[in-house]
Amino acid sequence: MDLRAVARAATTIENRGPEARALLQSLYPQTGRAVVVGLTGAPGAGKSTLASALITEWRARNKRVAVLAVDPTSPFTGGAILGDRIRMMQHHADPGVFIRSMATRGRLGGLAAATADMTSLCDAAGFDVVLVETVGVGQDEIDVARLAGVTVVVLVPGMGDSIQAIKAGILEIASVYVINKSDRDGAAQLEQELHAEAPHIPIVRTVAHEGRGVPELLAAIEAHPPSESRRVQLWHWRLRDMLLDRLSSRISEEQLRSAAEAVALHRADPYEIVDRWTEA
Amino acid sequence: MDLRAVARAATTIENRGPEARALLQSLYPQTGRAVVVGLTGAPGAGKSTLASALITEWRARNKRVAVLAVDPTSPFTGGAILGDRIRMMQHHADPGVFIRSMATRGRLGGLAAATADMTSLCDAAGFDVVLVETVGVGQDEIDVARLAGVTVVVLVPGMGDSIQAIKAGILEIASVYVINKSDRDGAAQLEQELHAEAPHIPIVRTVAHEGRGVPELLAAIEAHPPSESRRVQLWHWRLRDMLLDRLSSRISEEQLRSAAEAVALHRADPYEIVDRWTEA
Repeated sequence: MDLRAVARAATTIENRGPEARALLQSLYPQTGRAVVVGLTGAPGAGKSTLASALITEWRARNKRVAVLAVDPTSPFTGGAILGDRIRMMQHHADPGVFIRSMATRGRLGGLAAATADMTSLCDAAGFDVVLVETVGVGQDEIDVARLAGVTVVVLVPGMGDSIQAIKAGILEIASVYVINKSDRDGAAQLEQELHAEAPHIPIVRTVAHEGRGVPELLAAIEAHPPSESRRVQLWHWRLRDMLLDRLSSRISEEQLRSAAEAVALHRADPYEIVDRWTEA
Repeated sequence: MDLRAVARAATTIENRGPEARALLQSLYPQTGRAVVVGLTGAPGAGKSTLASALITEWRARNKRVAVLAVDPTSPFTGGAILGDRIRMMQHHADPGVFIRSMATRGRLGGLAAATADMTSLCDAAGFDVVLVETVGVGQDEIDVARLAGVTVVVLVPGMGDSIQAIKAGILEIASVYVINKSDRDGAAQLEQELHAEAPHIPIVRTVAHEGRGVPELLAAIEAHPPSESRRVQLWHWRLRDMLLDRLSSRISEEQLRSAAEAVALHRADPYEIVDRWTEA
């Protein structure tokens, strides 16, 4: 598949219609070869710079790379949290690199389901690596980590990241830790803290904007392919997201809003409404 | 309803069966009088101490108070994030106070739906205030804030909380900010930052373990009853949670796990599986 065909298919998938489902089912037998790498961490950790350096490294080894840049949109303001995506632009002209931004659709399970489908598309299209980069913290990151075979968690010395990340459950999803900007004070302390927290998880120090540590990170990613039990777990989560995505698409936001109005004014019984929706 | 009857009904609701649905539907006409107050903030912010001080204050005004202590369980380790609930124990012997701990069930929308149902139970049972306290950060807090008419976000000076909280979207759900432990350095700076971020949201300074600022917090809560549009918005979210909770209950974890195994080993087509589940 050339990049244009991939881009067209990606649009079909984002539109979430019956065509998406048919396309994905036809692609499914071709999936299973790509390595899906999640790249996650707090804003300011240097994820985009690191992503760009990783792409350069993979390209030097003649690997085709797809990048899915996930922008979780706040459900409250509707505004996207902006990431610094500019550094990835240098790869835009490279036919071996496919870059796609994805935003949330305000539907439960929607972003996770659409992103997972997109990794399947890129996998079937012959990309060797699918890099899924998230912006922000919290559940969205965890959801996205749930679709990656290997999850790289990026931390920075002196940002208070380690404790915050532990709180948010981010460390629990890591396959590899990266201490980026590791020429800063506090790198050794952060490494100690991470090691104490999870001694079995490899830690790689990088200075992404100079490319330092990036070959080592690649080696760490390749040394930890997803186990069979990990792949089963990934499908467990993914099937649930697929199920919820499919089911919630049956009720429109307009239906929800008008029902909510009736219930808030005590003109309708919410239990009867949900019964009606689920019987249909 | 006496406390024993409420506790029995709470167990029925937690079990999520058809009896829960029937009970909730029968209670629904009696709901709509209680003020549902969400209490949220990072671990260590002193939420439990503040909750206890608020309860004392409400009890002094002869209000009956129900407390729902929500412990989001990590989906990765299965371990609960422990909160300091000990300080609330002093109210356990008070027949005007009902305290219930709730844990996640590992089902999407499950905690939010069950907690919302529990607020309805307490509301129908005649409690004047339902205080919903969450532990941890991220999506669970946001989900729980979505069921409260008034959400109190607790911050502490010098914890780097303000920036982290903004990132996690917590500030967007606040009705009232509390700067707890406000005798510490940095309270004025935090207040400035919060005010700059959201000038329309009231800020109350407290020192919860001394009871300082607690009457002012109560006044701020009472001064901001949920508007009609807020109540519609709450039902919008709640109907969606109810819908997802009902739908996802149709597929058991065992079914998910065995299907995931078949798909991971390329023995089954995930799209056919989801079709089959949603047609049933």
